[in-house]
Amino acid sequence: MISSNEYFDGTVKSLGYISATGKSTIGVMEPGEYEFNTSAKETMNVVEGELIALLPGETEWKSYKTGAFFKVGANTSFKVKSVGQTAYLCQYD
Amino acid sequence: MISSNEYFDGTVKSLGYISATGKSTIGVMEPGEYEFNTSAKETMNVVEGELIALLPGETEWKSYKTGAFFKVGANTSFKVKSVGQTAYLCQYD
Repeated sequence: MISSNEYFDGTVKSLGYISATGKSTIGVMEPGEYEFNTSAKETMNVVEGELIALLPGETEWKSYKTGAFFKVGANTSFKVKSVGQTAYLCQYD
Repeated sequence: MISSNEYFDGTVKSLGYISATGKSTIGVMEPGEYEFNTSAKETMNVVEGELIALLPGETEWKSYKTGAFFKVGANTSFKVKSVGQTAYLCQYD
């Protein structure tokens, strides 16, 4: 089954599925700033667009453009700013 | 706005948005075989998984795995078999 999800009043939408290596979601974010909580370790890949992220324990925002990715641990939170509409792939360990 | 679309009785779901270079959709296909009609030229990228495609004018099915892509012209059709659930990015010219 492909699950459909919406967050932040529909400004982030995602589709969930199972890949060869585990659970994944692909989604799109509207321009804006978001804070996400993690329950599992995840790898966030920018499929198309740009995310500027503030990762746990860091003090500087860093830019991740098309093809770049960052990893976040379980049970923490991170902030991202989406520059324009950004498509992402989130892979859970 | 992020548009939500479903095709083939919900076995293909996609999210539409605007990238820096034009219109794009990301989506997920359930395992199965599908035929898509094109109205504009498009580049189909496999984000995660595997698509086996029969492109216009070709007689052999070819496999496209994570990171691979193929291009299709406007006003034609192509067939794909999704091996497991496959996430894709479709970019329109």
